[in-house]
Amino acid sequence: MPSVKRTPEVTMDKHAIYRHQGLGGTSGIGHKCALVLVDFVNGFVDADQLGGPHIAAAADRTVPLLAYFRAQGLPVVHTRVVFASDGADVNIFALRVPPLQKLTEQAHASQIVTPLTPEPGEWVIRKQSASAFFETGLAGWLLQRSVDTAVITGCTTSGCVRASVVDAMQHNLRTLVVSDCVGDRALEPHVANLFDMQQKYADVMTRDEFITQHQAITACT
Amino acid sequence: MPSVKRTPEVTMDKHAIYRHQGLGGTSGIGHKCALVLVDFVNGFVDADQLGGPHIAAAADRTVPLLAYFRAQGLPVVHTRVVFASDGADVNIFALRVPPLQKLTEQAHASQIVTPLTPEPGEWVIRKQSASAFFETGLAGWLLQRSVDTAVITGCTTSGCVRASVVDAMQHNLRTLVVSDCVGDRALEPHVANLFDMQQKYADVMTRDEFITQHQAITACT
Amino acid sequence: MPSVKRTPEVTMDKHAIYRHQGLGGTSGIGHKCALVLVDFVNGFVDADQLGGPHIAAAADRTVPLLAYFRAQGLPVVHTRVVFASDGADVNIFALRVPPLQKLTEQAHASQIVTPLTPEPGEWVIRKQSASAFFETGLAGWLLQRSVDTAVITGCTTSGCVRASVVDAMQHNLRTLVVSDCVGDRALEPHVANLFDMQQKYADVMTRDEFITQHQAITACT
Amino acid sequence: MPSVKRTPEVTMDKHAIYRHQGLGGTSGIGHKCALVLVDFVNGFVDADQLGGPHIAAAADRTVPLLAYFRAQGLPVVHTRVVFASDGADVNIFALRVPPLQKLTEQAHASQIVTPLTPEPGEWVIRKQSASAFFETGLAGWLLQRSVDTAVITGCTTSGCVRASVVDAMQHNLRTLVVSDCVGDRALEPHVANLFDMQQKYADVMTRDEFITQHQAITACT
Repeated sequence: MPSVKRTPEVTMDKHAIYRHQGLGGTSGIGHKCALVLVDFVNGFVDADQLGGPHIAAAADRTVPLLAYFRAQGLPVVHTRVVFASDGADVNIFALRVPPLQKLTEQAHASQIVTPLTPEPGEWVIRKQSASAFFETGLAGWLLQRSVDTAVITGCTTSGCVRASVVDAMQHNLRTLVVSDCVGDRALEPHVANLFDMQQKYADVMTRDEFITQHQAITACT
Repeated sequence: MPSVKRTPEVTMDKHAIYRHQGLGGTSGIGHKCALVLVDFVNGFVDADQLGGPHIAAAADRTVPLLAYFRAQGLPVVHTRVVFASDGADVNIFALRVPPLQKLTEQAHASQIVTPLTPEPGEWVIRKQSASAFFETGLAGWLLQRSVDTAVITGCTTSGCVRASVVDAMQHNLRTLVVSDCVGDRALEPHVANLFDMQQKYADVMTRDEFITQHQAITACT
Repeated sequence: MPSVKRTPEVTMDKHAIYRHQGLGGTSGIGHKCALVLVDFVNGFVDADQLGGPHIAAAADRTVPLLAYFRAQGLPVVHTRVVFASDGADVNIFALRVPPLQKLTEQAHASQIVTPLTPEPGEWVIRKQSASAFFETGLAGWLLQRSVDTAVITGCTTSGCVRASVVDAMQHNLRTLVVSDCVGDRALEPHVANLFDMQQKYADVMTRDEFITQHQAITACT
Repeated sequence: MPSVKRTPEVTMDKHAIYRHQGLGGTSGIGHKCALVLVDFVNGFVDADQLGGPHIAAAADRTVPLLAYFRAQGLPVVHTRVVFASDGADVNIFALRVPPLQKLTEQAHASQIVTPLTPEPGEWVIRKQSASAFFETGLAGWLLQRSVDTAVITGCTTSGCVRASVVDAMQHNLRTLVVSDCVGDRALEPHVANLFDMQQKYADVMTRDEFITQHQAITACT
């Protein structure tokens, strides 16, 4: 009886296929890290607006990480989604997801959550798209500070975090996602996107794993 | 006995949360569509390189869609991943996923699959990043042709298709993903990414649904 | 005695060289125009800050042009240079030209001049670079509105106007500079840059020439 | 008889106005330089095509500068204008300046001049716009190599050099123009653009001044 030629896709599970094809590498930590806090604003920790308690927990876990970056004197950047109150810059994103249009400059929902309040000198980016890098000047801001590694936290994992991570890598930054400092409105997309990012774009590790590794690398200062 | 306050995240399933928060909208088909074929090259239909049979099937299903766009005289753009053979442009992406470095100008793996061979006047973009829009000039090419709607096909769903879809929307194009004309190396990320894209960035429909809707909209020419 | 072979550069004047090499073409007016007012703010009409009376006169001449665009219902966008008051986004530009750092959100110098006060729905871009397009999202905003022609006014001709004109063309917009609605702190660079732009990047015409041509093209609405 | 109030613009010459307003600063040489050779191709050293003998002389003077960067092991990038031979990517620039369309991949006119032939590992960018940075990925390539200073040479001074210099600064690179290693088709725009760049965007110095200063800064390696 002739043997059937089975394709790798059929005989392997997801992880085996990715390994077989050479994905799942690492880009590591470089010479200088910056912390990017994506959209940790009031509207995204509220399940009745655009977020949920999983994101609130991620914000809480980010507080010591922010303190660590501040203690090291490393660059910190926060993003907020902010649309003009007269609708002048409503884009396709805000037409598809209308609650975004409520995130105006003065709205409570668009203010950064209190425990992560920016300090003077930390850059607060107002953005209208998913990625923290899209038309914001963030790549140039990091280049000016000789940053080669972006450490990404925030929300949502499957939305603005994922988009920011892809762009960070596309701008040739070594990119890290802090798995317990990113959150989402539902768990399934959170998990699925961490898998995608780890396989292709970014190293994924917990906050404490990052701090431990970073402390071990004295070159990264 | 006091009632426990349960958060929406706990009491709702994924779809209910997204509906509750106003996601899952539509951007529709506008006045003029362009077809974007992302990385339908030999290396991505081969399970021993970077793809698999799920992608080969998506490429086959794209043949009539490409014929439809050609018959309508609508713009068509193909992308290939192409790295310099001397390594001069190896980036973080290609360091994380080393097989990408083999996709040089002359390599068989980087040639577009025969059934989708570009015709003269169709633009073939050489790219080194995930997104078809990242540092390629595609947005300006579409603007020049008065395109307002990007119809995305190709591979992989969870990789370059997803990155291209996010960027298409960020550039303010109405964006469509043709669900049976995109493919991936494994099924699970394919499904998870179609969900994310539909909820946030793009309308998702089958090839035949798209053609039917497009034919009904005579304005989209 | 042998004759000397003289190069065209030696025997021709500037205009003849440019004609001989095929420069000085036209891109014309397309289907839909938008008006871009670059940096018409108080600090740039003041000779003791960053501008001068030549710019104030250009602003005055722009008032009827703005009225024309409003009457036609065509898109209007204003730019202001705005830096964070805590210095968080000081860039190389602001380090080279320190007075730019005074242009903070509330500063009188960074407010748009009264006769050109924006109306609701006109987008006011806050920028930190020379070009109105650089990392601002302007190209996508114009794409969303099906604009194919950018009509550029503002200041300075040799600075942010020139940079915006080059970028408008690079984004594949037909680009027009309104010669009497752009101004500079000194006359010589104003004239030199109008020459460069006309030869390579943009059609240059007076306000009244533009309005006359635009009125004649009913398609451009 | 009452005294007339004369504005600074009237009483000052060009240089005095710029000084009075705080322009003409310096950004200096940083930690690591890269050499950018803009469009030193055959078509731009030929007065019957797009250039002239002034550009040929600039190319000759660039040979020792290129040798210096190679000896230091510093990054080198060349640009060529290359359009598709089937016209698929003809843009507004190439419509305004039709001779650009002849610069196809195999055309003699689009090959880099022999004395500056790229070595393996030096990146050769194919571009369709004025700026070496516009949609080319150059900023990310420099970020990956920890470059903070761009040293610009090439042609034309008033065209692709000027556009590249503005963008280099906008990406937050310290930017240098090597005044005797840039050239133009006519002298007047060359001089006018060196003035503009020096005042606003870049340090301008001769090749030998740069090498002397660079040698003195051991930190810039």
